[in-house]
Amino acid sequence: MTGSTAAPFTADDYRARMERAARTAADAGLAGLLVAPGPDLVWLTGYTPPAVTERLTLLVLAAGQDPVLVVPALEAPDAHRAAGAAALTLRDWTDGKDPYAATADLLDASGRFGISDNAWALHLLALQQAMPGSSHASLTEALPMLRAVKDAAELDLMAAAGAAADATFEEIRNVPFAGRPESEVAADLDRLLRRHGHEQVDFTIVASGPNGANPHHEAGDRVIARGDMVVLDFGGLRDGYGSDTSRTVHVGEPTDEERRVHDIVREAQEAGFRAVRPGAACQDVDRAAREVIAAAGYGEYFIHRTGHGIGVTTHEPPYMIEGEERPLVPGMCFSVEPGIYLPGRFGVRIEDIVTVTEDGGRRLNTTARELVIVE
Amino acid sequence: MTGSTAAPFTADDYRARMERAARTAADAGLAGLLVAPGPDLVWLTGYTPPAVTERLTLLVLAAGQDPVLVVPALEAPDAHRAAGAAALTLRDWTDGKDPYAATADLLDASGRFGISDNAWALHLLALQQAMPGSSHASLTEALPMLRAVKDAAELDLMAAAGAAADATFEEIRNVPFAGRPESEVAADLDRLLRRHGHEQVDFTIVASGPNGANPHHEAGDRVIARGDMVVLDFGGLRDGYGSDTSRTVHVGEPTDEERRVHDIVREAQEAGFRAVRPGAACQDVDRAAREVIAAAGYGEYFIHRTGHGIGVTTHEPPYMIEGEERPLVPGMCFSVEPGIYLPGRFGVRIEDIVTVTEDGGRRLNTTARELVIVE
Repeated sequence: MTGSTAAPFTADDYRARMERAARTAADAGLAGLLVAPGPDLVWLTGYTPPAVTERLTLLVLAAGQDPVLVVPALEAPDAHRAAGAAALTLRDWTDGKDPYAATADLLDASGRFGISDNAWALHLLALQQAMPGSSHASLTEALPMLRAVKDAAELDLMAAAGAAADATFEEIRNVPFAGRPESEVAADLDRLLRRHGHEQVDFTIVASGPNGANPHHEAGDRVIARGDMVVLDFGGLRDGYGSDTSRTVHVGEPTDEERRVHDIVREAQEAGFRAVRPGAACQDVDRAAREVIAAAGYGEYFIHRTGHGIGVTTHEPPYMIEGEERPLVPGMCFSVEPGIYLPGRFGVRIEDIVTVTEDGGRRLNTTARELVIVE
Repeated sequence: MTGSTAAPFTADDYRARMERAARTAADAGLAGLLVAPGPDLVWLTGYTPPAVTERLTLLVLAAGQDPVLVVPALEAPDAHRAAGAAALTLRDWTDGKDPYAATADLLDASGRFGISDNAWALHLLALQQAMPGSSHASLTEALPMLRAVKDAAELDLMAAAGAAADATFEEIRNVPFAGRPESEVAADLDRLLRRHGHEQVDFTIVASGPNGANPHHEAGDRVIARGDMVVLDFGGLRDGYGSDTSRTVHVGEPTDEERRVHDIVREAQEAGFRAVRPGAACQDVDRAAREVIAAAGYGEYFIHRTGHGIGVTTHEPPYMIEGEERPLVPGMCFSVEPGIYLPGRFGVRIEDIVTVTEDGGRRLNTTARELVIVE
């Protein structure tokens, strides 16, 4: 039921992506890729099945072979209508037949394959059984950067999604906060994101006062009060590409401490952003942001990684986290979102989506990062 | 974003389910169960994570051990609020730590485990690597009937969901069909299901004329015309339990052939229903329905299995399909939904949810199965 989306890509675009993916897989020593319904399949073929069920739908890519989409016969008409359908061969199967054996017939029985992270264990186990000599690695492990580098058309869509999220912030900062439950402001965010073109809203976090100290608090029935810090973190998909931005606002005048904590997070976010340049490691972005917060004495209150990639999902590699040594490459898009979380009191998070250019980072969110006062 | 739901169950109910599941697993020779976010986890704990991501959330059940929920630290507060939280131990992990090693520490390293069908391949592969001596089977393979037999409270919820779907049909048969696109009637179905208490709508199939010959056609922009057969197939979750019913209506007077095909499907549905009794095999239900259609000369046009189980999802074991020899047990709930699909012309499907009682089947959908004429 989540939004499959008509991004403006043609069968030729999908053919090019599938060829590149198969080539990248071969270069990495893989015999092929097994792609399940979800973001990988959408990105490679434009196809979203009507529902994800126990019936196997699987795109099989191997260098030097035509792409094959194994699909339940009942859903073949849907698959035929996908934008990328002309670039692949459909192989449908009917209830009672064994789609795993049919898949195995297409492949090197002793190969190592990359498989979509979110492929069902049900299907992986059946494939392992049908091909006992084969081995598998998750796509995130094997080819983490497969979807990470966006081309020009994708960057345009990412920028449009970011602009729509920014337009949402410009409106939400003017709605009433004090006296309303978080859930009402969250509903405003949902409505605004959709009005600005989002077909899917993934999260509308409104975390007021002590709720702000839980980075994953969504929005509840707490009534926002004057004097509250409020973390806003919202995004979704617009034309199939993701937005995700956070701003922390204050209802009325903040205390000196609140202002100081916000300043530290803002400085950390700036430092993370400045660390973005081709060739830097992902962990450098995390370190740069974390250093600022640690130096200010709040290191133990920054309890998550600094960022995550974004594209046809709002949450994907590359991750800006200690230990991630892969280099940044122009065209990558990810969040830079440090935070400080003071248990029982309040939290602050500031987040922009940043894309890597030859010259450094470019923010796809450009609303004020200074502490905004709301009413 | 799909509806987590507050079914009226207590921590004691969830404790009993987890104990039963662990015992059933041990009886089946399994060292334990690995339960991923989704229907298994909801059924066993009442917990739905705020989002399903690459971060591991996993319920670990093993006979003689307390249930443990491995959960990202960020989501621990959400997990604490789950109805079943009091019946389990939370073990949270922070970004950068290895949750698979932590999971392995809880388990017999050389055991065989059942794992949720929809667990991500990413997680299964990491668990296989962390426990190289272990092996895994999908829960559908290992314990297909784990959630299949509903207790009295669950049957009440199933009956209420069925009644809500029936109320939806009674209203939809009176809306205008001719001259409106399928998608508008589908929107009516969505609205009516929600008005009758559904918190989640899974499908609203409106397949008119030739679209009816594709069993998985959802609803498109085809304008329904006088003379069309229209397959309606709709359902979702109400208080966490599923509805799913199909009726085929006709816009204006049907032809003799249309009436005959509808009669055959109705007779097949009746035969499938009558085959339902404790101890009969699942495949007997399929055979009974299929025989009627084959005898009438339409065997090649009945291109799917006769039914699927339903409970906290609208699509689960047991399956009424040739080759499924497991016996029906009182408390099981599943669809009986034969159909005839004439390519390029029209389709007919009639579907009720049926539950097994000591005395035979009991329909949870009771609207007219005769061909209903709409305008």
